[in-house]
Amino acid sequence: MSDNNGEDKKQNSLQRYLYAADKERLRTLLEEMSQITAASIEKAVRALRSGDAVLAEKVIGEDDLIDEKEEQIDQECLYSIATRQPMREDLRFVYSVMKIIVDLERIGDQAVNIAMGVRDLPEGLTFPGEMMPFVEKMAEENIKMIEEVMQAFEAEDETVICATRERRKLIKKTRNDAVSMLDGIIASEKVCGSDRMKLFCAVILILRHLSRISDYVLNLAERVSFIATGISPLTLKKAQEKGRPKTLFDKES
Amino acid sequence: MSDNNGEDKKQNSLQRYLYAADKERLRTLLEEMSQITAASIEKAVRALRSGDAVLAEKVIGEDDLIDEKEEQIDQECLYSIATRQPMREDLRFVYSVMKIIVDLERIGDQAVNIAMGVRDLPEGLTFPGEMMPFVEKMAEENIKMIEEVMQAFEAEDETVICATRERRKLIKKTRNDAVSMLDGIIASEKVCGSDRMKLFCAVILILRHLSRISDYVLNLAERVSFIATGISPLTLKKAQEKGRPKTLFDKES
Repeated sequence: MSDNNGEDKKQNSLQRYLYAADKERLRTLLEEMSQITAASIEKAVRALRSGDAVLAEKVIGEDDLIDEKEEQIDQECLYSIATRQPMREDLRFVYSVMKIIVDLERIGDQAVNIAMGVRDLPEGLTFPGEMMPFVEKMAEENIKMIEEVMQAFEAEDETVICATRERRKLIKKTRNDAVSMLDGIIASEKVCGSDRMKLFCAVILILRHLSRISDYVLNLAERVSFIATGISPLTLKKAQEKGRPKTLFDKES
Repeated sequence: MSDNNGEDKKQNSLQRYLYAADKERLRTLLEEMSQITAASIEKAVRALRSGDAVLAEKVIGEDDLIDEKEEQIDQECLYSIATRQPMREDLRFVYSVMKIIVDLERIGDQAVNIAMGVRDLPEGLTFPGEMMPFVEKMAEENIKMIEEVMQAFEAEDETVICATRERRKLIKKTRNDAVSMLDGIIASEKVCGSDRMKLFCAVILILRHLSRISDYVLNLAERVSFIATGISPLTLKKAQEKGRPKTLFDKES
């Protein structure tokens, strides 16, 4: 063995040691970001239930925390790639983290959208109480999904994707049930003012935001699966779609 | 000068040469992706005007092209970072490209949302003709904005951000005008069926999608500005916001 080879090996094992430290740090940061994001959903729905405009404003303001965390994690990822030059599964890990935070940020945006819906409800109108159980069910399931996916991220467990798909189906079903009930309410309305219309649109929008969150959580699960298996989300999607037309469940209608 | 130093310099200039080639390639790919995205907006709005469900399906299907382009560009960026180890403005460039494609993909998603709105219009109802001029104005402005931002990306011209902010204001104003007119239409309705309600919600949603696109284009402009100046979008945002509360124009309400 030449001296040079020995040096290379030492250098390599140092790089791997440093990379392992980066990875631990990224895990911690990502866990923090996912907790802030899940908390935003919970707070936005709490603001909706109680018509609490102050809490809604808080959710809107706290979106900056999520954006800052995203930027911080991006910086750490770039630093790790540029200095440790990870390859194969290591590069896959860092790249996946960079994509996971994009979806976490989108989830945070949807929580902000819900909070803005609360803030901008037409004067004197409150969110229809009959709709709250649907909204709360969807929010709870989304938060559970995020927690499950983050646990799977820790364990690099690709099987989470099946549980996520099931929960997402349940969320879509809850949304459809809510829309059916809303149809009934609308049909029974005697008069149809512009404010009532806006209120109903606000309900539909909030259901939509919660439904979108479940799409983004599925993206997260696909990234976790990619870390574990190396099969990219696009490849997964194509395998799933082969031979069947797009359905309402593929993308929000 | 030691031999070693000479080798390092040669190595460095080779890296810079290779990096410059990567950069050119990334520019080309990004230009392609932005063109596909802008075309999606145009087609989605054309499908809306003519009630063309086949064209709408085409837009929905073509979203995969955008996702594939995104994945391809991501791969090239990672490869470039890992092998050329760009630093400072060069790393900033590659990182910005990775973030620009995220926003282009989001713009593509909004075009798909519009196309799905066309496909899912309640049976027998057509999009209100009075609304089309607003929709077309918003789409045109968005497409122009994307083209301007991409030209600025080529030229690394940070001043584009001012023009983008102005166009975005115009788009928000057009949306508000459209919503006011819709309010008038709703107020003049004699009966209020569930289908009419869904139609009005569909109109509000489509206006919202077009308005969201302008938010994402502003993100693009901020990334272009970051490439040129090194001032991050988050820093820019904070400087802009200092001393004023969040307004409706900051995020979609």
